[in-house]
Amino acid sequence: MCAKQKAVVLLSGGVDSATALALAVAEGFTAYALSFRYGQRHALEIEAACKVATHLGARKHTIQEIDLGLFGGSALTDDIAVPKDRDVKDMTEEIPVTYVPARNTIFLAFALAWAEVLEANAIFIGVNAVDYSGYPDCRPEYIIAFERLAALATRAGIQGKTISIRTPLINLTKAEILKIGVRLGVNYRLTLSCYDPTQEGRACGRCDSCRLRQEGFKEAGLSDPTIYANLVAV
Amino acid sequence: MCAKQKAVVLLSGGVDSATALALAVAEGFTAYALSFRYGQRHALEIEAACKVATHLGARKHTIQEIDLGLFGGSALTDDIAVPKDRDVKDMTEEIPVTYVPARNTIFLAFALAWAEVLEANAIFIGVNAVDYSGYPDCRPEYIIAFERLAALATRAGIQGKTISIRTPLINLTKAEILKIGVRLGVNYRLTLSCYDPTQEGRACGRCDSCRLRQEGFKEAGLSDPTIYANLVAV
Repeated sequence: MCAKQKAVVLLSGGVDSATALALAVAEGFTAYALSFRYGQRHALEIEAACKVATHLGARKHTIQEIDLGLFGGSALTDDIAVPKDRDVKDMTEEIPVTYVPARNTIFLAFALAWAEVLEANAIFIGVNAVDYSGYPDCRPEYIIAFERLAALATRAGIQGKTISIRTPLINLTKAEILKIGVRLGVNYRLTLSCYDPTQEGRACGRCDSCRLRQEGFKEAGLSDPTIYANLVAV
Repeated sequence: MCAKQKAVVLLSGGVDSATALALAVAEGFTAYALSFRYGQRHALEIEAACKVATHLGARKHTIQEIDLGLFGGSALTDDIAVPKDRDVKDMTEEIPVTYVPARNTIFLAFALAWAEVLEANAIFIGVNAVDYSGYPDCRPEYIIAFERLAALATRAGIQGKTISIRTPLINLTKAEILKIGVRLGVNYRLTLSCYDPTQEGRACGRCDSCRLRQEGFKEAGLSDPTIYANLVAV
């Protein structure tokens, strides 16, 4: 019997990365979940990531502490207001203030380091080019460029072993993602999408990320298990 | 008069990165130095980096704390013995145990984040494909792949502004690097190359990095200002 292949899965604690982890496990990978405390304004998403990693059977969960706040430049790490109450269809026009410069490049670079040490075959990242079309580092061409870099960057690459960058959600809508996750048994109550939750961990229900999540559940015809602070009925 | 262009310079505190910083400054860039505490076995190189940043007139010096030791896989972060007393010509054969998986990818990813926030035009990295030919992430094809990635990864890239990855030392020998640095006024006594210094900060004089440094000074016909613990005459 072959040993199971390993995959590093980037896990933020939100809907997309939880679904990506569920897909990696369903595909038969032994999953190593990787999260970051990166100077985001709240650390509740790390708690969510821990719960999700356990729930979905990750072999190990590592949390890297980095400080993107040292560089600034984003509403998620600075004192820039997170936009609220925007319509979902208005979110695709430009790069939002919640964009964190080079964040996915940093996350993938760490994932690559761990993948090399583990001799993993794949890195899963739950990027989405539909809902986050304004983020440069969620586009398919970006992912292809990173995969090419990975082949040149590592000892494994020199030896001809490739580490594939898997983006199973890249062309799916939020509703499609949620349907897949529910089918795989993901308990989305454990996840946290909100950019600006209350201190008690309730999602605000008004930021872009909450709005996308609400619309996704609605469109999928699924009930949203999230407890929102603003008690929005969805 | 045009505002000066900005460059992020990766600064380890060793000979190569100090020379790269001196070259960026000599070329007229306002330099932003970036160093990492990454779980390396000694933190003395950070002290060296601080001295070098001040000495060479970096506008700002930022130190990111990351923990590559969480992943393991290198003599520089694990309890793997650093090789000693190897001949310089034996160092090019294979990837050494001092290789840290994906380290340059992680360093460049952070530099890219800062460059994007600063609206910098360039990132300087003192990689060298001559002395470190065994490291996959010191090769020109790797750097080209990262530059391509950078163009796709950032808001600046989408807007058509490129961030170039500058590797002025990539094809130089250690002796050539030292000659350039001395001409630019670099005080190499402030730098630290050693993989395994004493607690007092003296270079061991026996690891690959010390050996390359010693050979470089010798070949350049320059006196080596380093104080070695083993008092090797060079």
